[in-house]
Amino acid sequence: MKPFESLGLRFDGKTLWVLDQTRLPHEEVWADGSDPVHMVSLIRRLAVRGAPLMGVAAATSLACHAERGATPRQYETARLALRAARPTAVNLAWAVDRMRDAADPAAVAEAIFNEDVTLCERMANHGAALIGEGEAILTHCNTGGLATAGIGTALGVIRRAWEQGKVREVFVDETRPLLQGARLTAWELKRLGIPCTLLTDSMAAILLRDGRVQRVLVGADRVAANGDFANKVGTYGLAVLAAHHGVPFHPVAPYSTVDLACAIGAAIPIEQRDAEEVRRDWSPEVPVFNPAFDVTPVSLITSLVTDKGVLDRATLEADGLSELMR
Amino acid sequence: MKPFESLGLRFDGKTLWVLDQTRLPHEEVWADGSDPVHMVSLIRRLAVRGAPLMGVAAATSLACHAERGATPRQYETARLALRAARPTAVNLAWAVDRMRDAADPAAVAEAIFNEDVTLCERMANHGAALIGEGEAILTHCNTGGLATAGIGTALGVIRRAWEQGKVREVFVDETRPLLQGARLTAWELKRLGIPCTLLTDSMAAILLRDGRVQRVLVGADRVAANGDFANKVGTYGLAVLAAHHGVPFHPVAPYSTVDLACAIGAAIPIEQRDAEEVRRDWSPEVPVFNPAFDVTPVSLITSLVTDKGVLDRATLEADGLSELMR
Repeated sequence: MKPFESLGLRFDGKTLWVLDQTRLPHEEVWADGSDPVHMVSLIRRLAVRGAPLMGVAAATSLACHAERGATPRQYETARLALRAARPTAVNLAWAVDRMRDAADPAAVAEAIFNEDVTLCERMANHGAALIGEGEAILTHCNTGGLATAGIGTALGVIRRAWEQGKVREVFVDETRPLLQGARLTAWELKRLGIPCTLLTDSMAAILLRDGRVQRVLVGADRVAANGDFANKVGTYGLAVLAAHHGVPFHPVAPYSTVDLACAIGAAIPIEQRDAEEVRRDWSPEVPVFNPAFDVTPVSLITSLVTDKGVLDRATLEADGLSELMR
Repeated sequence: MKPFESLGLRFDGKTLWVLDQTRLPHEEVWADGSDPVHMVSLIRRLAVRGAPLMGVAAATSLACHAERGATPRQYETARLALRAARPTAVNLAWAVDRMRDAADPAAVAEAIFNEDVTLCERMANHGAALIGEGEAILTHCNTGGLATAGIGTALGVIRRAWEQGKVREVFVDETRPLLQGARLTAWELKRLGIPCTLLTDSMAAILLRDGRVQRVLVGADRVAANGDFANKVGTYGLAVLAAHHGVPFHPVAPYSTVDLACAIGAAIPIEQRDAEEVRRDWSPEVPVFNPAFDVTPVSLITSLVTDKGVLDRATLEADGLSELMR
């Protein structure tokens, strides 16, 4: 197997290392994800996260498993465990399904990695073309190099538009409860030298009202056949707020995030996570509502940016995504 | 001076003790607020907070100052310092203005305290009448016994409606950045035995969409003459979301929160607070947007609950609040 690496994943030819994203931005700790049992745990506790990256990491872990002599039965057991590690992001199932009965698992994993890099480039180019001169952009959660094998989905678009001199600044929702915006997106933007300002999720409405943000870009964990999509919790409210204020709102996702088996957003399974993520030590014992994702209807989006191009709302409402997926 | 006490304030006849709300829910630490210089600091760091409570606490601190022999000049200096401790909640200025040139500061402070208790009772009764059987109610920040001298503003309404058997449960926004919902409202509701569920601010949209919340009740820090109002940041976005989903939305505030000198919400000064409140240790050095409040236009509210009765949006839009304040 050939080595490959991204911001959050390093395969050195023998061992798969993943950057433990729960430790960022304070520590850059790399964990061994070569063993699928360990990778399941890394994914569950969000050490490895981001819909595309989860798929790439799971596939590579399976390739390591095969390389290290797993029997077909052991391989299939590991594959199913990885597939079920988290329920919402369909990229995980998409990637490990490509690994099923693979004659050369290493080659398939490498192809998935390389393809994700390419998909990011394509989304970045398609999306950056939408952005006007001097725009301030608001984003939610983390959708960059830590969420994919490449430059990212929504954050990849922002990066490309920044390289083109069009982005004035980026506003970053902290993204409670797990603070992917505060911990990961701010960290990535700082590394890239892109000016950014952090805010609590509850402050975005002010920026939208005051015209301080020209566009909202977010990722997606699963896009239904009609264009509805699941993404990190908070996305739906942000979409309502953007629509109310007439600010363009775009999910950015590769074809691997589309699930034609879900006709509409309501069919997407939403993971409920542990109450302690919200409670921390602030609110002992109180019951908690903690869905990790919410669903935004296609009616609230301006357009969907994919690796194959940009689909506007009217097209999506008329035709859905089946044409794109052909 | 006669002793008086509330959930967050105890005057024992000589010393004013205030519950340090930054230490809740873990520790109940009482701080001496008898010295106005100390009270300014307690208010600035939100050890004492809640628009009505700040007014009561500042007035009582001034009364202690007079009792302990402050000269008229020292008294006036302290009064002006308290008045400027925080800029948005008008109750603070309203209360300390009543203390200006007071012949008997102790009697005025006691009157302010007692009046606030009464105002809370009246708001609770007027507001509870709006609530239907079996409603789930969403609230933001803390507006209860910790925010007033009495049973609260929005949370007082919820408590009264609960006593009347009408409230099924309460959903509590954690209220970033300082978590008054998670730390204070959840603590109060638990003491009262009212079932509550905590959520991040970004999750409220899901509850509103899914019909799991029948009404939103919030407090106010300043109500402009036209019915626009400032409240804890996040309120504006919540009002947009409630309107989008057709869920009734009510600010609850006593007449002491109304400022006829502000014609519209845009005239209300909004406090910007320290970046560290948002950053904590998660996001070192990143620039931060941290307004403590936002302004909700009267067009987004269903009605305003006051101690003098309930004013619906149409009435407010036609006549504003000057009639109420006569």
